[in-house]
Amino acid sequence: MSKPQSQNEMNAGRLESPRLGEPFLLTPGPLTTSYAVKEAMLRDWGSWDGEFRAMTVELREGLLALTGDTEGVLDCVPMQGSGSFAVEAMIGSFVPKSGKVLVLANGAYGKRAAETVKYLERGLSFVDKGDYMPPRGDEVAAILATDPDITHVLAIHCETSSGILNPVKEISDAVEAAGRKLLVDSMSAFGAVDLDINEVRYEAMVSSANKCIEGVPGFGFIIACKDSLEAAKGNSHSLSLDVHAQWAHMNKTGQWRFTPPTHVVAAFLVALRAHKEEGGVAARGARYTRNRDVVVAGMRDLGFETLLKDRWLSPIIVTFFCPADERFEFTRFYELMKDKGFIIYPGKLTVVDSFRIGCIGQMDEHVMRNVVRAAKEALVEMGVADASPPEIALIERAKLAA
Amino acid sequence: MSKPQSQNEMNAGRLESPRLGEPFLLTPGPLTTSYAVKEAMLRDWGSWDGEFRAMTVELREGLLALTGDTEGVLDCVPMQGSGSFAVEAMIGSFVPKSGKVLVLANGAYGKRAAETVKYLERGLSFVDKGDYMPPRGDEVAAILATDPDITHVLAIHCETSSGILNPVKEISDAVEAAGRKLLVDSMSAFGAVDLDINEVRYEAMVSSANKCIEGVPGFGFIIACKDSLEAAKGNSHSLSLDVHAQWAHMNKTGQWRFTPPTHVVAAFLVALRAHKEEGGVAARGARYTRNRDVVVAGMRDLGFETLLKDRWLSPIIVTFFCPADERFEFTRFYELMKDKGFIIYPGKLTVVDSFRIGCIGQMDEHVMRNVVRAAKEALVEMGVADASPPEIALIERAKLAA
Ligand SMILES: Cc1ncc(COP(=O)(O)O)c(C=O)c1O
Ligand SMILES: Cc1ncc(COP(=O)(O)O)c(C=O)c1O
Repeated sequence: MSKPQSQNEMNAGRLESPRLGEPFLLTPGPLTTSYAVKEAMLRDWGSWDGEFRAMTVELREGLLALTGDTEGVLDCVPMQGSGSFAVEAMIGSFVPKSGKVLVLANGAYGKRAAETVKYLERGLSFVDKGDYMPPRGDEVAAILATDPDITHVLAIHCETSSGILNPVKEISDAVEAAGRKLLVDSMSAFGAVDLDINEVRYEAMVSSANKCIEGVPGFGFIIACKDSLEAAKGNSHSLSLDVHAQWAHMNKTGQWRFTPPTHVVAAFLVALRAHKEEGGVAARGARYTRNRDVVVAGMRDLGFETLLKDRWLSPIIVTFFCPADERFEFTRFYELMKDKGFIIYPGKLTVVDSFRIGCIGQMDEHVMRNVVRAAKEALVEMGVADASPPEIALIERAKLAA
Repeated sequence: MSKPQSQNEMNAGRLESPRLGEPFLLTPGPLTTSYAVKEAMLRDWGSWDGEFRAMTVELREGLLALTGDTEGVLDCVPMQGSGSFAVEAMIGSFVPKSGKVLVLANGAYGKRAAETVKYLERGLSFVDKGDYMPPRGDEVAAILATDPDITHVLAIHCETSSGILNPVKEISDAVEAAGRKLLVDSMSAFGAVDLDINEVRYEAMVSSANKCIEGVPGFGFIIACKDSLEAAKGNSHSLSLDVHAQWAHMNKTGQWRFTPPTHVVAAFLVALRAHKEEGGVAARGARYTRNRDVVVAGMRDLGFETLLKDRWLSPIIVTFFCPADERFEFTRFYELMKDKGFIIYPGKLTVVDSFRIGCIGQMDEHVMRNVVRAAKEALVEMGVADASPPEIALIERAKLAA
């Protein structure tokens, strides 16, 4: 086993390129993690043992340190499974069986949250803004004013399916003014985009190991008000996804209720320490923002257009329209990009063809310059001279004000 | 990074000791895995990419190959989360909302299954045989004869809390004769104890990555009849734990519905290949049986007694009574054993004090001899001359016929 080789263009010190032959994942989780993060998985832990219990404490405290909670009102509950499991656990545990949730959707993850509410047989009020239009504070206020049954509002922080950064602060203000509770899916944003409990007054939020903290996938976590964790007893539809039970057991015994993904947790701790060393949420967000700015500027130079105007772009992932030129074929583009060392994502828009490039993971602006170079070469290889999108895409795009 | 060192006593070729300083986990999952298994986690995969989809196919086919299904009636559905998540997914997906489950419990995992049924608001008939008495076929037949509402019987294959190997074949016969359906929790047994679909006619069974296949924790899997998978549509109480939805999506797209624990999956494939190379279920079971025989004989020589008579001992984990001598203290014994390189498990009996030693993972009889040696030294250090259990333990033990 040899240490990973540094690529010439990667001089950022803290960052490491993947091993030779391994592509960068421009996909917002699973993403490219550091070698040190993966190396932490080279041993086995007993989940009952004191050493692992100490690791669980570090994990919970490290995450709480990112919330802005100076008064100890929040607690952190890790949960086995993927991020969607944590979203479901949050809804099932905090919304009482008689509760009703207003789900604010503008993409796939908002829709999935609404589907989850239906599975759980909680009341649902569903606002579907289509592929990317952001739900706004005044809309939320108006809906809450007319429907007193709504107990909770669920907002998506960064809707990863388009890359839009939703206005959670104004949503929070509307929810608080109406005396309801806010649940936030901050899966792809937490750790890189500020979500300060003093600004966005959530009851609970979720994220997962393999997003902006740059761990490997295998668990999610719920950060919630202790009062609400206490009150959540008996709400859950599911034994496994019962956040109250996991929390109470963890506080009592120091252990996860059921077998934790020990190796994934070990990897996460290394990722969490690196996050702190880099300078926390602000520095992580700044690196991702540079990544985004470089890739957006470079791709625009090639003729590509982003779905969103600058004001709505997140530093997490960016949606680009596919070029109008019929020589452009996404699967071919995907393979060409992969050959050049970059795995990109297909788009999720329903109206026009698109693809997505993630800005998160162990990557910096040097890597993003290579991404743009690879895209340029791929266009040449496909015979596409002009990457500008079809007229319909620009009409679509015009619907959203800057 | 250096390769792990071989301990002198470990000459088994295929097996590797943990790295220096790392204890053996005599705990039935998480357990000691091979270095090669962990090494497979040293890269990142895109979960959408073709390479990872091929890995998912290999995982599913590799597991199906262990079932004895020659006619293609079964399919395999991996599920994110721990083993308990897979048990819950199985119950929620195969038992219709109007169904009723007879849970056969003789330990902690049977009780947890019953609790799961309650959470899911399915009908429950609960047979609690106490700490370890096995549920028998004739009992099951009698209960089914008097309660026509029971649609499913849930049996625990190896009840890991005592280590008993439950008589699933006679239970299966009774269930089949009564025209009901059998669900099996084979978490700790599958891959080392035969569970042939032609013998034990289950509708579905579950196990997880970190048991007898010797992977690392992070997902479970459900193996079920395709007919039942088809019919499971709409049953599930949970979006995340919907086995039908996971199955249908995986068959259609080759992908897991939600982000898979990519690294854990990669590790599992290496473990699965090693399982095959070792000689499959029979050889794996034979190694664990030798492990058990060596540790049981050695511990008996020291005066320790097993909870179970030989006929009921599984090759997975063995419960020993704590010695009557009051100088024996479990926490001290645990720490002494850990210092000597072995992590053991506390017992789970409610009536008498006990502890457990697992026989599964990357260990062979040489390791087990060292375990016995360590136990002997620990007794000396604690000043315990005689490890025989108190009278009450032997009375308890006498309740279960050989
Ligand atoms: C905003 C958001 N919510 C939920 C999820 C679902 O997470 P997972 O795929 O881990 O289940 C994602 C995944 O990318 C996400 O970005
Ligand atoms: C028989 C049995 N069922 C269920 C479980 C629960 O699995 P997990 O701890 O992965 O949730 C275990 C764990 O050891 C087990 O042995």
